[in-house]
Amino acid sequence: MKISVLGVGCTKFAELWDKSLHDLIAQAQFMALDDAGIAPAQIESIFVGNMLAQQFNGQAHLGAIVAQQLGINVPSVRVENACASGSSALICGVQAILSGAANVVMVIGVEKMSDVAISQATSALMGAGDYQSEHFAGATFPGLFAMVTRLYMQKYGLTSKELAAVSIKNHNNAALNPMAQFNKKITLDDYFNSPVVADPLRLLDCAPISDGAAAVIISSYDFAKKYGKTGVNIIASTQATDTLDLASREEITSFKATKIAGKKAFEIAGITQRDIRVAEIHDAFSMAEIIALEDLGFFKQGTAGFETAQGKTQITGELPVNTSGGLKAKGHPVGASGISQVIEVVNQLLGRCGQRQVENAQYGLTHNIGGIGTTAVVHIFERK
Amino acid sequence: MKISVLGVGCTKFAELWDKSLHDLIAQAQFMALDDAGIAPAQIESIFVGNMLAQQFNGQAHLGAIVAQQLGINVPSVRVENACASGSSALICGVQAILSGAANVVMVIGVEKMSDVAISQATSALMGAGDYQSEHFAGATFPGLFAMVTRLYMQKYGLTSKELAAVSIKNHNNAALNPMAQFNKKITLDDYFNSPVVADPLRLLDCAPISDGAAAVIISSYDFAKKYGKTGVNIIASTQATDTLDLASREEITSFKATKIAGKKAFEIAGITQRDIRVAEIHDAFSMAEIIALEDLGFFKQGTAGFETAQGKTQITGELPVNTSGGLKAKGHPVGASGISQVIEVVNQLLGRCGQRQVENAQYGLTHNIGGIGTTAVVHIFERK
Repeated sequence: MKISVLGVGCTKFAELWDKSLHDLIAQAQFMALDDAGIAPAQIESIFVGNMLAQQFNGQAHLGAIVAQQLGINVPSVRVENACASGSSALICGVQAILSGAANVVMVIGVEKMSDVAISQATSALMGAGDYQSEHFAGATFPGLFAMVTRLYMQKYGLTSKELAAVSIKNHNNAALNPMAQFNKKITLDDYFNSPVVADPLRLLDCAPISDGAAAVIISSYDFAKKYGKTGVNIIASTQATDTLDLASREEITSFKATKIAGKKAFEIAGITQRDIRVAEIHDAFSMAEIIALEDLGFFKQGTAGFETAQGKTQITGELPVNTSGGLKAKGHPVGASGISQVIEVVNQLLGRCGQRQVENAQYGLTHNIGGIGTTAVVHIFERK
Repeated sequence: MKISVLGVGCTKFAELWDKSLHDLIAQAQFMALDDAGIAPAQIESIFVGNMLAQQFNGQAHLGAIVAQQLGINVPSVRVENACASGSSALICGVQAILSGAANVVMVIGVEKMSDVAISQATSALMGAGDYQSEHFAGATFPGLFAMVTRLYMQKYGLTSKELAAVSIKNHNNAALNPMAQFNKKITLDDYFNSPVVADPLRLLDCAPISDGAAAVIISSYDFAKKYGKTGVNIIASTQATDTLDLASREEITSFKATKIAGKKAFEIAGITQRDIRVAEIHDAFSMAEIIALEDLGFFKQGTAGFETAQGKTQITGELPVNTSGGLKAKGHPVGASGISQVIEVVNQLLGRCGQRQVENAQYGLTHNIGGIGTTAVVHIFERK
């Protein structure tokens, strides 16, 4: 398979109190059109990734907003898969093109989270887990990820210093990204002075509440060829699902869905982990980045934290990870996060990343999860 | 295009206080598997239509529940397009097969609405319209549809008697459908004795709040051939979008999205309106059925109410419409409704409908809308 990326557009991620959901969508969608150099009327299908607009903004039916703001009447669908909503929308967009239903597709992710109280956000986000067996029992998302982290520490000797290394790296990267919510470096002292959210996870292990939108316009390779827009292509688009509740799993320090989606993605792309020179990895919690790097086969199980502490995933390292700042520091407007990852990788492959540009990247990868690794989506990109 | 329907499964629609969201999904999904005669492990991709589980049941990420209950790890995605969520999920399922991503797909719709107060339901359902310009201004869904109805009455001389004819027909049909929420006939007196919800719409013009789930298993035609399951095929699957808010439209007594999706569906199927012998039409309000029958080209604009009053759309008429009882009387668990329509048409084409069976149907159509005709989805089915 080969799907071309025609253009990308993204708002700044932040608490954007002066922007409505409609505003955020408009900014990202028109930036992407400008970047692609095509007219709204050329979009033939739309997929929108969003998790929380019904609960936070009273707004369902986002597909129609995206279409209306483009002034077009094409099929438009909202896709929700918790924090993997954006990349799941991309999965559907890719399938729409491969099916022949559309030649050019806009995939956009959006979330406006800052208008509600944190308790309301925590409760709504727990919708990504199992309401019956987890939420009713009092579990929160940081709480569940803390359990995963605690067990991982016991099994592999990981300490808070390695967790800190993930967060510090991602903040350092975000300091080079003007679109990031936390456009600043942090120190080890900052990390250890940050409050414990769910032991052992500290505030600086946890992605923030964010507003933002991110859009990508994709097309069949043939369409892109006509427009001379085959600079970056999607060469694998895979997804897998694990049990919604943690209790039903054999293992919780490794996520089966990521393993399945990752393995399949490398098979389809016909490349290996060593070919990837830039990756955006789901780091809603520091622990998640470490586990994902192992599940995707970049590092052996139990080692990714230590490799991170040794600088292997820095911009200048062997495998630059989350050069954008990641969910932790770029921000995590849930529905937009998966598409934002795609945009960073596309921009890296096109050499558009300025101070945080990695060198010689021909292949990049994005990894986005929903729930505690319940849904995993992997995309692999190739520079022509 | 040709996609085969391998099997269908549906819960009773009602206020099912003793069934959880998980229970409803389980019942529909395993009925569909039994009907298809295939094993869970043969499902390669899942799409779930749902609008309100986040707001009503605290549960997002429904894709994972469906996969987990099947014990499989395949890609699973929730799709939301307000009241057209179920049929939008089917659109995605069809595309997944045509793209080559999957051979066999489960598409399931589910909604559990009866656990919340009516005021909460009314507010959440208004998420299908524009929050900024409509909901904030105090509009409700029945209120907006009442405005449409009032204008239609002024333009075409429609009266409450024709509206009543739609509702009475659909209740009469539901009386023959044991799975319907209102498994009983109503009279013209019942209609006029029912309270006004939003003048001129009465309670008996409005679909109820319902719980239920409906599942369909589809496959490539080639796969179905091997299993001898090509009895009913989907020969058109189309969708279109109009503005989210009514105020932005040129016309509100006819819905552009239905016109576009309908026209395209007939073109793709290569048949005409006269070939359709059974149709499930979105009748969340009586007025909606009348407008849809015109927009789909079955009757001339301004006439479908009068044709209905003359019996043309009864089971014994020229074009039997909503033989299941429709959303009005079969029930309207929002995310499940679109799939439930599909199931009725499939069962009609297979001659499984007992007392409400139509005669000699080779082609059937489903029409499902989200918002005030904002999203429209049309499917056409052919008996082999």
